[in-house]
Amino acid sequence: MNNKRIVSGMRPTGKLHLGHFHGVLSNWLELQKNFECFFFAADWHSLTTEYANTDGIKDSIREMVLDWLAFGIDPEQSVIFEQSMVPQHAELNLILSMITPVAWLERNPTYKEMQENLETKDLSTYGFLGYPVLMASDIIVYKAARVPVGQDQIPHLEITREIARRFNHLYGPVFPEPAALLTETPKVLGLDGRKMSKSYGNAIFLSDSAEETRKKVLSMMTDTLRPFKKDPGEPDRCVAFTLHSLYVPQEKREEIVVNCRNATLGCVDCKKILAQCMIDTLEPFRTKREELAAQDGLVEEVLTEGSRKAEAVAKETMREVRAALKV
Amino acid sequence: MNNKRIVSGMRPTGKLHLGHFHGVLSNWLELQKNFECFFFAADWHSLTTEYANTDGIKDSIREMVLDWLAFGIDPEQSVIFEQSMVPQHAELNLILSMITPVAWLERNPTYKEMQENLETKDLSTYGFLGYPVLMASDIIVYKAARVPVGQDQIPHLEITREIARRFNHLYGPVFPEPAALLTETPKVLGLDGRKMSKSYGNAIFLSDSAEETRKKVLSMMTDTLRPFKKDPGEPDRCVAFTLHSLYVPQEKREEIVVNCRNATLGCVDCKKILAQCMIDTLEPFRTKREELAAQDGLVEEVLTEGSRKAEAVAKETMREVRAALKV
Repeated sequence: MNNKRIVSGMRPTGKLHLGHFHGVLSNWLELQKNFECFFFAADWHSLTTEYANTDGIKDSIREMVLDWLAFGIDPEQSVIFEQSMVPQHAELNLILSMITPVAWLERNPTYKEMQENLETKDLSTYGFLGYPVLMASDIIVYKAARVPVGQDQIPHLEITREIARRFNHLYGPVFPEPAALLTETPKVLGLDGRKMSKSYGNAIFLSDSAEETRKKVLSMMTDTLRPFKKDPGEPDRCVAFTLHSLYVPQEKREEIVVNCRNATLGCVDCKKILAQCMIDTLEPFRTKREELAAQDGLVEEVLTEGSRKAEAVAKETMREVRAALKV
Repeated sequence: MNNKRIVSGMRPTGKLHLGHFHGVLSNWLELQKNFECFFFAADWHSLTTEYANTDGIKDSIREMVLDWLAFGIDPEQSVIFEQSMVPQHAELNLILSMITPVAWLERNPTYKEMQENLETKDLSTYGFLGYPVLMASDIIVYKAARVPVGQDQIPHLEITREIARRFNHLYGPVFPEPAALLTETPKVLGLDGRKMSKSYGNAIFLSDSAEETRKKVLSMMTDTLRPFKKDPGEPDRCVAFTLHSLYVPQEKREEIVVNCRNATLGCVDCKKILAQCMIDTLEPFRTKREELAAQDGLVEEVLTEGSRKAEAVAKETMREVRAALKV
């Protein structure tokens, strides 16, 4: 086991928004300082739900990886790769499928839940049922010691640990059981007050221009119980204010709280302050992103080189797997 | 589609017996003359039922391939390879899993049947459920035009065709639907009158010595309604006589029928004739096998070279698959 190794993947859904930024990317940036990180674009996983519409996957990968790079995920420090470029994920997936009881997959709490939430899609496929097996392969093929997860993903990691345990029990100790590295992920609200999500159409993207950002922030819901500026408002009820805590300096924020409650600061002005702080914070990121996007073939190069590094590690694991399996 | 291409695999169960010889190998030998054949040791498939006991797989492959070679399956004419040495089988398996409804697999008639027949083993694994997906990958990754199958395997091939059709429907025409090449497989009876099978302990192996062969043939059941030589026998009821039709020249056989029915030829003498004819027929094969077995590393070399050829073809298909999928 490599005690310093961490694996984490993201499904390519295109340009990242503030939810990804605060939920995953800032966390990755911290991890990158202290661990040997394997970060990957989980394109095989996209197929579990998007198999009927694969048109955008390549572009989504490019946009997503540009965001990673612009944000400081560094190919010199971390292994940045594409899942489908490392064939050992598929090989280990096939092997692990042979020892994973169907019942473990059926009892996976998110299985039924996702089928219900995404009921416009036909998710009764063999691959969708088996995505925890693929996830286990993604992680243990690198013998990762830890996996950064939110509270809600702990059951998934538990299946990974069970599969690793079963392999070791049947064939001898090859895989460490990866431990959860619990990460705090602030729930970032979208323009309409629901969780920020591309599919809800309520997201502010990292790559949005200053103009777009300002427009979106100004359209954001506030305190619905404050119809007019003359009415006192309550920041604790305000949707926009959840973002103030992420972008507006504390001193300014305290001032806002007072002036909202005493009805001297209106919502439009208040959101203008938020918009400006957000734009200022994201400005260096946006500039960097534009620079990177202008470099033809950059993302392809990063992913090719990273996948080569990932494959070297995965190959070594597969050698041990085959020796243990005696095939 | 390559109109002349055929794919056929065999699970490595060790040394082959007369059932394989007449059921599969003679058929392969015919096909080899007229088609571009891809013959493979299906070691991933072994894991679907043997995942808990993989000790013998490597040896089984060696013994099986020695039988193939000794019998005339020729690495100059056919591509002889090992499934697990060609990673594209696992990759395509993963992709096809995403588009295969679980219901197609659950309704597979042999699924429940095998679970019941092999009830001492735990076959409730995800990999066992999905073996038709792996089978489909094995076949279509080479764009085979035809697959030699017995009548009982037609439902399996139907799933392969359905999966190919679904892929083409979703992503464009990449795969031909492989057609069944119906093969006649005489049911070869074992020493005890049941179907010849290694697991029943009633098999005569191609690699058995003359001595062993004679001993086994002499222990074979005959006409159970003929307790003594003085009683007239009936070849149509005789277990051993099913093998006479495969090994004893017609003229001699007609003579035997007469002398069995008129009680002048006893079962022991009759089986001695069979044993000698069988030994004579198999002699050149056995000699050849010993020669080949004495060549260190031969099987490894054949499989490595064949797998290299297979991979070149499979790689080309996967390039098309990825282009169609846009990943």
